[in-house]
Amino acid sequence: MKLLNILLSALLFSGSALTASAADNIAVKPAETNVPGNEYPKVDTSGRVHFRVHAPESKSIGVDICGKKYDMSKDDAGFWSVVTDSLAPGFHYYFLIADNVRVNDPASYTYFGCCRMASGIEVPEGPEGDYYRPQQVPHGQVRSCTYYSESTGKYRRCMVYTPAEYETSGDKRYPVLYLQHGMGEDETGWSTQGYMQHIMDNLIADGRCVPMLVVMDSGDVQAPFIPRKGKDVNEERALYGSSFYDVIMKDLIPMVDSTFRTVDDRQSRAMAGLSWGGFQTFNTTLNNLDKFSYIGGFSGAIFGLDVKTCYNGVFADASKFNKDVNYMFLGCGTEENMGTEALVNSLRGLGIEVDYYVSQGTAHEWLTWRRCLKEFVPHLFKSDK
Amino acid sequence: MKLLNILLSALLFSGSALTASAADNIAVKPAETNVPGNEYPKVDTSGRVHFRVHAPESKSIGVDICGKKYDMSKDDAGFWSVVTDSLAPGFHYYFLIADNVRVNDPASYTYFGCCRMASGIEVPEGPEGDYYRPQQVPHGQVRSCTYYSESTGKYRRCMVYTPAEYETSGDKRYPVLYLQHGMGEDETGWSTQGYMQHIMDNLIADGRCVPMLVVMDSGDVQAPFIPRKGKDVNEERALYGSSFYDVIMKDLIPMVDSTFRTVDDRQSRAMAGLSWGGFQTFNTTLNNLDKFSYIGGFSGAIFGLDVKTCYNGVFADASKFNKDVNYMFLGCGTEENMGTEALVNSLRGLGIEVDYYVSQGTAHEWLTWRRCLKEFVPHLFKSDK
Repeated sequence: MKLLNILLSALLFSGSALTASAADNIAVKPAETNVPGNEYPKVDTSGRVHFRVHAPESKSIGVDICGKKYDMSKDDAGFWSVVTDSLAPGFHYYFLIADNVRVNDPASYTYFGCCRMASGIEVPEGPEGDYYRPQQVPHGQVRSCTYYSESTGKYRRCMVYTPAEYETSGDKRYPVLYLQHGMGEDETGWSTQGYMQHIMDNLIADGRCVPMLVVMDSGDVQAPFIPRKGKDVNEERALYGSSFYDVIMKDLIPMVDSTFRTVDDRQSRAMAGLSWGGFQTFNTTLNNLDKFSYIGGFSGAIFGLDVKTCYNGVFADASKFNKDVNYMFLGCGTEENMGTEALVNSLRGLGIEVDYYVSQGTAHEWLTWRRCLKEFVPHLFKSDK
Repeated sequence: MKLLNILLSALLFSGSALTASAADNIAVKPAETNVPGNEYPKVDTSGRVHFRVHAPESKSIGVDICGKKYDMSKDDAGFWSVVTDSLAPGFHYYFLIADNVRVNDPASYTYFGCCRMASGIEVPEGPEGDYYRPQQVPHGQVRSCTYYSESTGKYRRCMVYTPAEYETSGDKRYPVLYLQHGMGEDETGWSTQGYMQHIMDNLIADGRCVPMLVVMDSGDVQAPFIPRKGKDVNEERALYGSSFYDVIMKDLIPMVDSTFRTVDDRQSRAMAGLSWGGFQTFNTTLNNLDKFSYIGGFSGAIFGLDVKTCYNGVFADASKFNKDVNYMFLGCGTEENMGTEALVNSLRGLGIEVDYYVSQGTAHEWLTWRRCLKEFVPHLFKSDK
């Protein structure tokens, strides 16, 4: 029967079927990002990932994870395996490299990142990671919303987090955080790789942040940035994801404010983004301070700013900026260099008030951004200047 | 810089980068399921799919789609290509076969099916497919809900479709359809592969079906069915996905009825499912007719029923069954054989009222199930017997 054949094939060719090995350490557990039924990849208590893949006819198999490539070795049964170095906790994209082609691991869930559907693995933290795990608290929802974008002439999907109380709070209206992903990612990133709904649920339940909506749309940067030949690279970069600016200002914000019970004013609207989304946040908020009063950049791809003149000189009058903007946050990890500290110093040199957060031991990766979100949102919508 | 290296690598190893070919027919278009930035795979007006993959070092590359394997041929630049036969319109899972290992096409989005994240492609229908496309009508939402399942001791995610009017209809309460996916799929299937939200939006806007909630949870059948050695295969099959029955009755329905504005009675509760989800629908509804009064099976994996005695003889008293159950629907495609017609005939032989729908030209695939949903939901919640 065709159905059974499909399932049998899926089983035969699965990357790492369930097998028992007496040599396995009890502290080595299947990753929580594994597709059910797959024992590998496993993670041990040192944060090392144990990969095991069945590919008897391949000439070479490797793993590309956290910026390093590992060659795998094959046993007589056609299983390739390798154990990585200790990796930082949190979420990592990775690929198998089969005969020099980057493919997904059939044993792991895939996530939109690296400009494609990419394998992902969660290396568990200890209890310090409980803030992004579901707890016995009231749970909000992440709503997938279809809407028509006049500015692009296409239907789009955005994701909207609503806090648990939204269902039963009658006519109460809520402030809104617009939250962007990075280059090569999309509107799903924050709720799948980022666990933003659990972070928000837990912070709201603890009374650390006010209930708010969080809107996540695509920054229109799913495809790689490829400057056209003969064009100026800076001009090309300005075009990359540029459709997003009309989308958010002309289509998305009006749709959100007409669909949800929001407070439609600048005191109740924030925006933050990671990496390229941090750049898009600067471009959006600093050109529209009549619409936004809270700003966050998480490992923002904000390079080469002349802070005295950029965005029509918005930073030149620090006292006005500090009065207009209720809160600005810039964060990054210790293991990356996006120039965040230099930007903070430049801004502070002008008298601009900006909080600077550094995530210890993390690079340009989702744990940095989960932590940034946790640090950022408690400051939102608590003070009008 | 690390970020740029990642993106450059993603580009270099992408399955089918944007390239221009003068020989391409204008009627051959990139599939709508392509990741942005990828020209291939393309679909032509005959429903043939044109695959093109860059893998210069691979010994062999093939494509496995719609139950047939196609060998690809390599050109001097290392691009492998093939054109398939004409395929049925709608959504199809597929795999590339690289040196005998089934991998995903990096150029396409992935979908949970075949017990893993699988590549998918949409072969476009004409205007007859407009019912599952977004139209200029009010749009409902698909809400991802986190909840704790006492029966499994784990947090789960379910997806809940709410109709557009739900946001603004005050205290109005709604009936609920519980809608299940098939073996090797999960709670995301109906809203990604199935486009159920567009089907519901369009039917509701046309006045063809009443506004309702649609709840989609995992049937706990993500992993393949593998009977244990030495065990009876029928008993093993009964265990496959069996955790779902306590989940839906003890955890999911109470959570939905306490979280959403539902009508909590059997006259306002329906259940349907495709393939294994059809089997789970029979097992759930026919054992709990105090909770359900509408039943749908789409290509249901319902085999070997003794209709006179099954489910404690529920079909033996046809007049009682026909009085208790407001509507029963069984559907399938012409190009599959799940035994649906024989089941319908057996039931009708006992005097059971059941609608039978046959989807022309489709197999055990999502277009069959989109059509089944479209045929099924207009019958719901309109008549209490």
